[in-house]
Amino acid sequence: MSNPINRELQATLDPQRKSWIDSANDAACDFPIQNLPFGVFSTAQQAQARVGVAIGDQVADLAALFEAGLLRVGAESNVFARPALNDFIALGRDAWRSVRVQLSALLAKETSTLRDDAALRQRVFVKLADAKLHMPVDIPGYTDFYSSKEHATNVGSMFRDPKNALLPNWSEMPIGYNGRASSVVVSGTPVRRPNGQLKLPDQERPVFGACRKLDIELETGFIIGRGNALGEPVACEDAEAHIFGMVLLNDWSARDIQQWEYVPLGPFNAKGFATTISPWIVTLDALEPFRVAQPVQEPKPLEYLRHAGEHAFDISLEVLLRPEGASEATTISRTNFRYMYWSMAQQLAHHTVAGCNMRVGDLLGSGTISGPTADSFGSLLEITWNAKNPVALKDGGTRGFIEDGDELTLAGWCQGDGYRVGFGTCVGVVMPAVK
Amino acid sequence: MSNPINRELQATLDPQRKSWIDSANDAACDFPIQNLPFGVFSTAQQAQARVGVAIGDQVADLAALFEAGLLRVGAESNVFARPALNDFIALGRDAWRSVRVQLSALLAKETSTLRDDAALRQRVFVKLADAKLHMPVDIPGYTDFYSSKEHATNVGSMFRDPKNALLPNWSEMPIGYNGRASSVVVSGTPVRRPNGQLKLPDQERPVFGACRKLDIELETGFIIGRGNALGEPVACEDAEAHIFGMVLLNDWSARDIQQWEYVPLGPFNAKGFATTISPWIVTLDALEPFRVAQPVQEPKPLEYLRHAGEHAFDISLEVLLRPEGASEATTISRTNFRYMYWSMAQQLAHHTVAGCNMRVGDLLGSGTISGPTADSFGSLLEITWNAKNPVALKDGGTRGFIEDGDELTLAGWCQGDGYRVGFGTCVGVVMPAVK
Repeated sequence: MSNPINRELQATLDPQRKSWIDSANDAACDFPIQNLPFGVFSTAQQAQARVGVAIGDQVADLAALFEAGLLRVGAESNVFARPALNDFIALGRDAWRSVRVQLSALLAKETSTLRDDAALRQRVFVKLADAKLHMPVDIPGYTDFYSSKEHATNVGSMFRDPKNALLPNWSEMPIGYNGRASSVVVSGTPVRRPNGQLKLPDQERPVFGACRKLDIELETGFIIGRGNALGEPVACEDAEAHIFGMVLLNDWSARDIQQWEYVPLGPFNAKGFATTISPWIVTLDALEPFRVAQPVQEPKPLEYLRHAGEHAFDISLEVLLRPEGASEATTISRTNFRYMYWSMAQQLAHHTVAGCNMRVGDLLGSGTISGPTADSFGSLLEITWNAKNPVALKDGGTRGFIEDGDELTLAGWCQGDGYRVGFGTCVGVVMPAVK
Repeated sequence: MSNPINRELQATLDPQRKSWIDSANDAACDFPIQNLPFGVFSTAQQAQARVGVAIGDQVADLAALFEAGLLRVGAESNVFARPALNDFIALGRDAWRSVRVQLSALLAKETSTLRDDAALRQRVFVKLADAKLHMPVDIPGYTDFYSSKEHATNVGSMFRDPKNALLPNWSEMPIGYNGRASSVVVSGTPVRRPNGQLKLPDQERPVFGACRKLDIELETGFIIGRGNALGEPVACEDAEAHIFGMVLLNDWSARDIQQWEYVPLGPFNAKGFATTISPWIVTLDALEPFRVAQPVQEPKPLEYLRHAGEHAFDISLEVLLRPEGASEATTISRTNFRYMYWSMAQQLAHHTVAGCNMRVGDLLGSGTISGPTADSFGSLLEITWNAKNPVALKDGGTRGFIEDGDELTLAGWCQGDGYRVGFGTCVGVVMPAVK
C-alpha cells in the first residue's frame, strides 16, 4: 500500500473534529478542518506571495505561522515564504504530513494557541475573500491523459467509427500526451478565444480566424510530490507515494483547430492557449476517506499497470456556465472522478515506464471526465453532441459551444458525513479573440 | 527584417578575422572567432558550473572575464556565474550582441589584453578537453516540429498511404507537438533503451518489453531568447528576433512503442525517455552569413506564416554510428538544414498564433531533417526503410535499428571561406534496457 496512514494522520481525518473557526464547521463549506488544502496567496496589504492553507472562510498564512515558531517543517529556512509550493513539496511526504498534523491541531476547537490570541490571529489569518490566489506551484511539465472510457468512446463515435469507437490501444494503457506547461493558469485568469487554422467543409484550403467551437474539458489533475531519476520508472504499487495532491483542471479546447491539426502528432494549438487549474491543492491524505474501487478493467492490464487495493476517489464534479450579464449560472454537467477507467497510479507508472523522469510540481491531467449519461459528460462537444443538441440555459439561451463573455466554472468535492472536502472552484471567463 | 546586423556586428563575421588562439584559425575547427557559441561548463578544479564560450580548443570562462572587468553586460551581478544561460539570455538581444562584439575584440589577433597576459589567460581559459559540458539552458518547454517534407513523405509512405503520403494539413502549417522537457539531456549522457508496450503482429494483445526498433532523429533545435505574453502571438516577420541560437538535437525514438501508442494523441513514451542536445548554442548572429532561401512553398502559406527574405540556413549535417568496441564510426547520413520546408520563424509564429506563450530557454526542435536521397535521410527508419535495407558499417556489421552499445553522433557546421562555424557534436551511447 503506497499511502499508509498512521494514527496521528488518521486523527486529522476524523469526521467529528471541529475547528474554532466556525465557518469551517459548516456542512457546505469546502474547507473544513479535515481538508487543509495548500495554495499560494497575497493580499493588498502584503503583496509578497506566500503559502497558505484554506480553512473555512479564512486563509492561514503558513509563512507567518513558521515565523511565529508555531510550525516546524524540518527546514531551517521558511519554505512557506515563497511564491510557489515547490520547495515545501520537495521536503517530502513526511514533511507534508507533519505540517498537516500540526495544522489540524492548531485549528482544532480545543486548541487555544491561536484561538485565544487575537494579535497572533491577526498576523496569521486573512479572509479568503481578501486573498489574491496565485498559481500554487511552478509546473515544470504538464501531461494530459485521456482516461475516461465514456469520453474516449463518445469522441471516437463522433469523429471516427461508432462501431469501433474505442481504439485497440486504449484498453491497454492510459493514453496521454505532453501538454503545454507555460499556459497553465490559475482560476480567475481570463481566457482569450484562440485564432487558428479552420478547415471549413465547403472550402478546399483552411482559413485563418477565431475558433468557432471553443470548449471546456472537465478534468482533475495531480501534482507530483516526489520525482524519479531518468531511466528509473515508478512502480504502480509505489506511485501514490509520488503524488502530493489534486486540483480541478479545465483543459480548454478549440475543437475546430484540433480537428484540422491533430493528425498525426496530436493536439497542439487547440490546447496550448490556456489550461486553468483551481488554486487549492487537496492532498492525497485529505482524500483518503473517499477512496473507492475503480471500474473493472477488462482485459486485465499488463503487469506493470497492476496495483492491489482501491485507487479511485469519490469526487463529485460539476460544470456551470453563466453567460455574460446573466444573474444565474446553469449546471451543464454533473459527474464523478470515480468513473475514470485508469487510476492516477496507473497513469504515473505508464508515464515513467520507458524511463521518463518526473519533477516536483509536474501536473498530470486526468483527461475529460465523462459519466455514462449525457448530463454527466465532461465537455460541450459531448453534451451537445458537436452542437447538434444545444444545451438550454436558465436565462433562456442555449449553447452548442462557448460564446464570448461566458463564465465557465468547475466545482468538485468529496461528501463526508456532515462535512465535505472540497476543491473550491476553477473559473474562467472567455474574452474575444485577438483581431 | 527581424535580424538586422549593424557594422560592429558585421565585423565579428569577417571571414578574414583571426584569433591569437592558433587552434581557432584551423580551417577544420568548429569554433573559430566567427562562431563564439555559448555553453555551460565546469572543471575538476572548479566544480561550479558557469558560462563559457568555445574558441578553438579552449573555453573562455565568461564569469572570470566579467570578474576581471573585461566584459560588460548591462547587469550588476555576474549572470555568467550561473549554471545555465537563462539569466544572460533574458537580458535581451542587445546584451547578446554586445557580448559577442566584446569577445570578438578580446580574442582577435591584434588585441593584447589577454594575449600578452599569461596570468589572466590562466584564469580565463580552460582546455575544451578538460571541461565538463553541462546543459546550456534550463528548458521550461520543449516542442518538436515535423517540418521536413522528405521526412513526412517517407513516414507517410511507410505507415499510411504511399499515394497520399503527405497529409493535407502538412502543407498548410508547421505540424508540431509538445515534447517532454524533463528528459532533454546534454551530449555525452548515456541513453537507456526504453521498455514499453509492443504490439507484435502475431499476437492479439501487446507484450511488455525492451524496444526493438530504437532510432535516432537528426534534428536541430532553437532556443527562445525572448518570450511573449500569453495571448500575444509573435508575428512571423518578428520571429527571428525571439531566437537566441541553435543546437543539434537527437530525438531518440522507439518506433515500435510509437506505432502502438501514437493514435490519436501523438507520440508519448516513444519519445519521452531522452532527447539529446549539443552543448554549444550557436547564435543566430553567427549563422547570419549562411542564410539561404528555404524551399518554395506551394500552396503559398496563409498570411500569418509569411515572411520576406531568406529564412533557411546552409548547415551541413551528419550522423555517425560506432558500434561498441569498433575503432571507427560510419557516417550513415549526410544532409542539410536548408532542406527544411518550414522555417524556424514560421514554426514560432504558428506555435504562438493561438496565444501560447514562450519563455526564455524554450527549445523548439525542427523535426527530422531528411534530404531527397536515402543517404541523406535523418533516421534509421528511413535510411533502412524500416529495417528492410540494413545499412552497412565499416566494421563489417549492419544495422536496421540501433543496438545496445552503439554510439550515435550528430555533427553540423556551416562552411565559410577558409573557416567553418560548427556546432560540435551531439553524442549518445545506448545502454541496455532496465530488466
